[in-house]
Amino acid sequence: MTEQLNRDLLQRWDQEDELAGFREQFHLPDNLIYMNGNSLGVMPRQALARAQDVVGREWGNDLIRSWNINHWIDLPQRLGNKIARLVGADEGEVIVCDSTSVNLFKLAAAAVRMQPGRSKIISEPGNFPTDLYVLQGVEQFSDGRVQLHTVEREQLFDAIDEDTAVVVLTHVHYKSGSMFDMAALTARAHEKGALILWDLSHSTGAVPVDLNGVGADFAIGCGYKYLNGGPGAPAFLFVARRHQATLQQPLSGWFGHANPFAMRDDYEPAPGIERTLCGTTSVIGASVLEVGVDLMVAADMTKVRAKSVKMGELFIALVEQRLQGLGFTLVSSKDSAQRGSQVSLRHEQGYAIMQALIARGVIGDFRAPDILRFGFTPLYLRYVDIWDAVEVLADIMARGEWQSSEYQVRTKVT
Amino acid sequence: MTEQLNRDLLQRWDQEDELAGFREQFHLPDNLIYMNGNSLGVMPRQALARAQDVVGREWGNDLIRSWNINHWIDLPQRLGNKIARLVGADEGEVIVCDSTSVNLFKLAAAAVRMQPGRSKIISEPGNFPTDLYVLQGVEQFSDGRVQLHTVEREQLFDAIDEDTAVVVLTHVHYKSGSMFDMAALTARAHEKGALILWDLSHSTGAVPVDLNGVGADFAIGCGYKYLNGGPGAPAFLFVARRHQATLQQPLSGWFGHANPFAMRDDYEPAPGIERTLCGTTSVIGASVLEVGVDLMVAADMTKVRAKSVKMGELFIALVEQRLQGLGFTLVSSKDSAQRGSQVSLRHEQGYAIMQALIARGVIGDFRAPDILRFGFTPLYLRYVDIWDAVEVLADIMARGEWQSSEYQVRTKVT
Repeated sequence: MTEQLNRDLLQRWDQEDELAGFREQFHLPDNLIYMNGNSLGVMPRQALARAQDVVGREWGNDLIRSWNINHWIDLPQRLGNKIARLVGADEGEVIVCDSTSVNLFKLAAAAVRMQPGRSKIISEPGNFPTDLYVLQGVEQFSDGRVQLHTVEREQLFDAIDEDTAVVVLTHVHYKSGSMFDMAALTARAHEKGALILWDLSHSTGAVPVDLNGVGADFAIGCGYKYLNGGPGAPAFLFVARRHQATLQQPLSGWFGHANPFAMRDDYEPAPGIERTLCGTTSVIGASVLEVGVDLMVAADMTKVRAKSVKMGELFIALVEQRLQGLGFTLVSSKDSAQRGSQVSLRHEQGYAIMQALIARGVIGDFRAPDILRFGFTPLYLRYVDIWDAVEVLADIMARGEWQSSEYQVRTKVT
Repeated sequence: MTEQLNRDLLQRWDQEDELAGFREQFHLPDNLIYMNGNSLGVMPRQALARAQDVVGREWGNDLIRSWNINHWIDLPQRLGNKIARLVGADEGEVIVCDSTSVNLFKLAAAAVRMQPGRSKIISEPGNFPTDLYVLQGVEQFSDGRVQLHTVEREQLFDAIDEDTAVVVLTHVHYKSGSMFDMAALTARAHEKGALILWDLSHSTGAVPVDLNGVGADFAIGCGYKYLNGGPGAPAFLFVARRHQATLQQPLSGWFGHANPFAMRDDYEPAPGIERTLCGTTSVIGASVLEVGVDLMVAADMTKVRAKSVKMGELFIALVEQRLQGLGFTLVSSKDSAQRGSQVSLRHEQGYAIMQALIARGVIGDFRAPDILRFGFTPLYLRYVDIWDAVEVLADIMARGEWQSSEYQVRTKVT
């Protein structure tokens, strides 16, 4: 970033921004700069109307008939097919259901079952906690047949071997924002006969993903971050077509049956991606999620990525200019090709500084023990917002606001 | 039911009904008699406002801060403690999360793990399909350590033996409405050293349940039937306090961790019921569910049950009077003590008859191959509604309306 940065320049960037029109599709509270869309995306304006419609009309008036007349029965597939377009998957390869954690359990357990002679699940230490916890659950319930091995990312490539059943990695790291080379690691896994499962929670809607382009086997992802699906929105999962006919997943509930309403005693998995479903669709959550997905599908992911990269570079440049010598270090890679849509800083007073920032209306978040995270969501964040956020941060540091006792006590859960 | 039944008499019953006031708390579409609350409960009027509030204010305005200021973090426990009062459980023994199917997997797998020397899971044929399917999943992923045995209910008592790890039964049968003697079967399971897991999907909010009174080990239940929580509402589960410290469930996601936001690599289960949580709470669905739960908690379950029984007896008496010789047989028990809050009829033209009924505004449902189900929801159904429903049914039979070709083709999914 070589240009002389100032607020006027950034206003011009915003005026010239081809994605600027999306901002008015979102509800952005006054006096707030929201840099936490990597944790919980903001509310699309239409989401409120959609919530009213699914609750008041579809449930309230149409009641049980909505399974047919309002197409509740197809909701997981319909949404899945939309998300497929964001991650380089084909029709019938993605479906919306349950939570990211539950979906990881289904696919990790299924992957292990597809590899009867292999005993290793490989992941990395410091992966998003639920990924490691769920894999520990898969390990424990395998009664010793598979073991989870966590390998530092520098050694990952070499650690994937002929005994590896499945590699489970998060494409963009939740804390550092570091991004794996999905193509290289997928190729490596396949070279060794291993399967690979990508967690796209911090990728989908933020960085281009081409699951079929790289030949990925499985993926999971989150509905409430960059897809702006609402708090606790249903998640999604991907199974490459070539695996669908043989995939056996343990959570074999009735919505995964070939003919759920035949109400037979014996489970017979649906022929396609539907076999990964378990219980009844959370209709309200999925309906609200669809609004966010529709907005993301309407955006050009190439432009989203270009703006995201420019925002990240701008933030790093401003931090370097304005926060020199104040104890901040850059955690994320300076190389945009290795960074998702967030920048993380380390500071030993990270918790207190983030509380002070939030009190001033700049919402990022904190991840223990010392990480401040700032997410860039090109559909609703402006370049001037980044300028203003760094100004506030510099001011907090200059005034020592973070030293206030109210920011020191850790009362927040997230 | 010995009184001479007529519509005037039933209007008097409605006037004298102590639960009548609850009806106005629900949105009941015009010209509809809804006897399908056992499948999807109707919308409480406040549910629409609650949906608007959680979406528009809590998500839209407060965003990520809602985990703290709007208490999203405690939602599973808060709702669980309310539902506990409906099922005879104590504070900290019930929690709201995921779907009924997912929760069954967690607890059935955990129960099997608590019984290392025992190889049988016992259930009954014709149990609700998802229960059998999920248990088949537990069986399959145990690699031969446990097998599912389905035993006809007459032989169940004797089938529970020293090799039984866990008995999994649905308290009120989804199709017939038959109700198990929960106390007797729980005692029998314990006598043989087995654990017991009750599916309360068709019980909670419909019939009194006393989990701790009978000494039950585990239970699961549904949010969208008699709790009126909305389509695909989150489900709940119960773990008796005595089992909580040792319970290991396979879906060990981050919300089940002792300290989720410490973001450590190793899973450490939360000390209490929270260890059954997996992924992020579906906040919108759970918030809407709370409205239905609050209404049910406000009702006296003894009165709910008394009205439910009276409605069931009324329906059976009217069917006997008005539908003699038309091919209907009663599937549900005539003994109210053995029946939940629904009455099922068998008719070889059941599908077409139900379609004709629905077309005339009487909503029951059909379960293959030949069952018509009629649910009684004392909080919003009137005695005159039952009179009117049977009148319509008799009229449909007299006119042969069900023979219309449009009702013969099976296009409906549910």
